[in-house]
Amino acid sequence: MILTVTPHPALDVTYEVDALVVHGTHRVRTVREVAGGKGVNVASVLHRQGAAVLATGALAGPVGEVVRADLDARGIPHDFVEVGSATRRTLTVVDHASGDATAFNETGSAWAEGDWAALVAHVEGLLASTQPRVLVASGSVPPGFPGDGYATLVRLGHAAGCRVVIDASGDALVAGVAARPDLVKPNVHELRAATGLEDVFDGAKSLQDLGARHVLVSLGPDGMVLVVPGGEVLRAAPGETLRGNPTGAGDAAVAAVAAGLDAGAGWPDLLADAVAWSGAAVLQPVAGMVDPDDVHRLRASVRSDPPRS
Amino acid sequence: MILTVTPHPALDVTYEVDALVVHGTHRVRTVREVAGGKGVNVASVLHRQGAAVLATGALAGPVGEVVRADLDARGIPHDFVEVGSATRRTLTVVDHASGDATAFNETGSAWAEGDWAALVAHVEGLLASTQPRVLVASGSVPPGFPGDGYATLVRLGHAAGCRVVIDASGDALVAGVAARPDLVKPNVHELRAATGLEDVFDGAKSLQDLGARHVLVSLGPDGMVLVVPGGEVLRAAPGETLRGNPTGAGDAAVAAVAAGLDAGAGWPDLLADAVAWSGAAVLQPVAGMVDPDDVHRLRASVRSDPPRS
Repeated sequence: MILTVTPHPALDVTYEVDALVVHGTHRVRTVREVAGGKGVNVASVLHRQGAAVLATGALAGPVGEVVRADLDARGIPHDFVEVGSATRRTLTVVDHASGDATAFNETGSAWAEGDWAALVAHVEGLLASTQPRVLVASGSVPPGFPGDGYATLVRLGHAAGCRVVIDASGDALVAGVAARPDLVKPNVHELRAATGLEDVFDGAKSLQDLGARHVLVSLGPDGMVLVVPGGEVLRAAPGETLRGNPTGAGDAAVAAVAAGLDAGAGWPDLLADAVAWSGAAVLQPVAGMVDPDDVHRLRASVRSDPPRS
Repeated sequence: MILTVTPHPALDVTYEVDALVVHGTHRVRTVREVAGGKGVNVASVLHRQGAAVLATGALAGPVGEVVRADLDARGIPHDFVEVGSATRRTLTVVDHASGDATAFNETGSAWAEGDWAALVAHVEGLLASTQPRVLVASGSVPPGFPGDGYATLVRLGHAAGCRVVIDASGDALVAGVAARPDLVKPNVHELRAATGLEDVFDGAKSLQDLGARHVLVSLGPDGMVLVVPGGEVLRAAPGETLRGNPTGAGDAAVAAVAAGLDAGAGWPDLLADAVAWSGAAVLQPVAGMVDPDDVHRLRASVRSDPPRS
């Protein structure tokens, strides 16, 4: 079983309008609301792929209730702790004709005293009661989240016997790798931002020097690179050109890694799965979705390079 | 006591961003959420002015809960019936530097079977239990609202011994006046849209022919015209030039009318109050607010024309 932890989930709201006009007045044609946040998307993809998963994290207030209701409606098992700081929304305004999007991201209210302690106690309780083999902790962090919060989640997971995957960026990623997560999955931009290094392999090595064991770097259409402990490099890419929406492709890759670790797959298979699941996510209009048929087809055509050091 | 009925309230959300860029990505600097809808604004102004008021109408779901919580926080007495169709939001995106606004209005979900019956039963119950002297029914109507909904609310109010004020537009206004409300308050644009007549006095007369008793027409900076039964015309205007935000000025005028009817004021005083309260609302940055000191000052300088027929 896989436990996904999302410290800072969101309600992703989409407004469709005729066309966005600065300082105009718009009738909203349709409103869509879905549970969002990277760990929620990971859980959603795992659920679509038939894996046993439980989504947890922190929710609060009426927006949190809408997130829970959407997870219920989608059949995604979840058990979030209620905290004191209201759950944020993201808003995407989509032009009807062109499909072009304008994004508004709420930063979320700062965590109240006790919110972090409540999340830690809740995750500890779920680790004890559900005995997962894999813990995934993903996404941005709220204002007031402890600097070593992701590192603490890694330690909790390891203490419970889990393999631990972290998908974070910036300071949260750098601080998180100190606790030796089994895998981190920055994309190439996040890797450069976190390490200050231009070269992908130098950056991955730098995260390993800081404590990360495996580093999986997504290169967009060029596939993925996996640097294993000791520095051996595996590389794989999709066998077809994919057009679509890259939002959520990274979350699908993390889902594939988690499923592979849960099943005890070897690293080359796990990398090929990550490329296939990620590609299938690109073909979907929204994050957190894959079509299992796409995954199956893409998996068969993944091009894997021989390992090199 | 005054009972305000808002069939289609909203949660008015304001996002402040640095500057809106079409197809850009924006960090939302601040999020503000306030209970909105015309009847809610009327109740808010009455509460600010110390009048005894109860706000009712229909709310639903988590957005409705936020509306209730905001009314609680502002101390506005309320008793809304829970219905099956989710409460809508409005979103205003304000540019930080210029203050310019871009508006997104959700239309709201269509009323489910039974929502209208639930509102009618709830209003009947409140009329019996609170014995108001004035019933105000205000604002847009949700999809699925009965064509004669406002007329029914007028009849309920009259059956309970209330004076009834309607602030509606379009078909809802035209259908509502058939039940002979004591006063309707279109602005000049709404009057022209509802009657198809360019001249204000012709339009007001037309609404009286359809059943309205008093017609109060707001002319923006030029003040207001009140046409009483029989056709006599009262006119008044503010004694100072007002700069500010006209949103909610009409609601403040309705609040003044309701307070005057509740207190048994004569029509000339009531018209002068409407001009003063409305002007005070212009001086506030958001709808539903007046400063009682502004009301007091503006009331002293209202210029009233002699009645004419």
